[in-house]
Amino acid sequence: MSGQAPMSGKPVVVLVRPQLGENVGTVARAMLNFGLTELRLVQPQFGWPNAKAVNACSGAFAPLNGVRLYESTKDAVADLNAVFATTARGRGLAKPVLTARAAAADMRSRAAEGRRVGLLFGPERTGLETDELLLAEALVTVPLDPGFTSLNLAQAVLLLGYEWHLASDRTPARKMPHEGRPADQAELDGLVGHLVAELDRADFFKAEDRKVSLSKMLRATFARAGLLEPEIHLLRGVIKALANSREERSARRTTPKSLTSPDEAL
Amino acid sequence: MSGQAPMSGKPVVVLVRPQLGENVGTVARAMLNFGLTELRLVQPQFGWPNAKAVNACSGAFAPLNGVRLYESTKDAVADLNAVFATTARGRGLAKPVLTARAAAADMRSRAAEGRRVGLLFGPERTGLETDELLLAEALVTVPLDPGFTSLNLAQAVLLLGYEWHLASDRTPARKMPHEGRPADQAELDGLVGHLVAELDRADFFKAEDRKVSLSKMLRATFARAGLLEPEIHLLRGVIKALANSREERSARRTTPKSLTSPDEAL
Repeated sequence: MSGQAPMSGKPVVVLVRPQLGENVGTVARAMLNFGLTELRLVQPQFGWPNAKAVNACSGAFAPLNGVRLYESTKDAVADLNAVFATTARGRGLAKPVLTARAAAADMRSRAAEGRRVGLLFGPERTGLETDELLLAEALVTVPLDPGFTSLNLAQAVLLLGYEWHLASDRTPARKMPHEGRPADQAELDGLVGHLVAELDRADFFKAEDRKVSLSKMLRATFARAGLLEPEIHLLRGVIKALANSREERSARRTTPKSLTSPDEAL
Repeated sequence: MSGQAPMSGKPVVVLVRPQLGENVGTVARAMLNFGLTELRLVQPQFGWPNAKAVNACSGAFAPLNGVRLYESTKDAVADLNAVFATTARGRGLAKPVLTARAAAADMRSRAAEGRRVGLLFGPERTGLETDELLLAEALVTVPLDPGFTSLNLAQAVLLLGYEWHLASDRTPARKMPHEGRPADQAELDGLVGHLVAELDRADFFKAEDRKVSLSKMLRATFARAGLLEPEIHLLRGVIKALANSREERSARRTTPKSLTSPDEAL
């Protein structure tokens, strides 16, 4: 098609016979959350351009400004190389039915092959017709709790856009705080050893076998916390402070004229 | 807490100082899509119960009917064993920052350990305060396109609920149509062999090396289609019909008084 925007590899979103202008606005917002900008409408059941769409888009103007209108779903997908159609039910057609996640992986593959990918969404109440589903190479359903499957148009677009985005997103799944490097096992053992030694001096362990089991428990507790090196440092300072405080109090009790200043015991 | 609903293992959704009643309705809808029903509000900025929430919930009454109100975020999470807090930015706190997907896996693990899990969402405009983030064992961010990160409250709940649901959902990623079993390699070879033999008889291959390369190409094309056994059967019928039709037409051309009835050639 001439005048077409340069191919981005991103899926084109096709809304078939949408019933409400505001839904096009919320769809535009959901699209832009994941960098999708190309939006096509087949026989919208309202005038276009549409003020309700603009009001509902929360500033996501790019997809609205580029909207293209089509007379039929077939026309809307004519220039696309790989079409995926969303449906609430599989419908017993001779098509694979993919989860949103599997569809996103396939869409990425198709785009990587240089194919223009389209993603079809049917009217709010009724969904796509069988003839429209047959235009697609695969059907897509979003897994929902079977007890409540009412999903609005923008939410369906949001979840598919999200999966598309995640299929190549490089955000680390776990980003640890930058306040220091993770402690290694030697540092962890040092901490536990320090603590156990001080507890030993404080007669915390009544019997030797109790000492072994409690030491193991302390080791396990600290191990689970995923400590950072500065946290180990801080904890060892805490242990030292508590131990010194106890010794100094005890020193004050036994020798009334302490050699250390009382302030240091605080 | 007495009078508490029986522990479901599902996360409790806590909305902190929500500003708009309708957002609680759309949050309830998003929750119920993934079977979540326990909703808590900390200092809602509107009266409760709230007609706008009911109007916006699209029939998702269960979370609204069970809403509990709290004076502070600390109170709202007091009985929970594992708290995750959503935030748009990591904020440089000494907390792991998880994607929604990683958080869902952790929430499942925590629930499997018998812990009650809570998921905190801040006010629409400002998000959670630092003191509230510190109540959580980890922070959660939804990966979005950096160019447009405006995500409304219900959409944030939807994406977290979706990931929670998928973390244990058993929907097969690809459900193939039930119209027959997938063809095996012998059936695929049989189809290609049949086609190549008929093409050979029709002098389609000008040279033997052309025959080899085109046969390989046909084999690859059919292999990629993921054919079912009934489709192989149908395609072999198609080849047979075309071949017979050609032979009969050719027979009519060479022997005007055909031995076969013209009808059979159709």
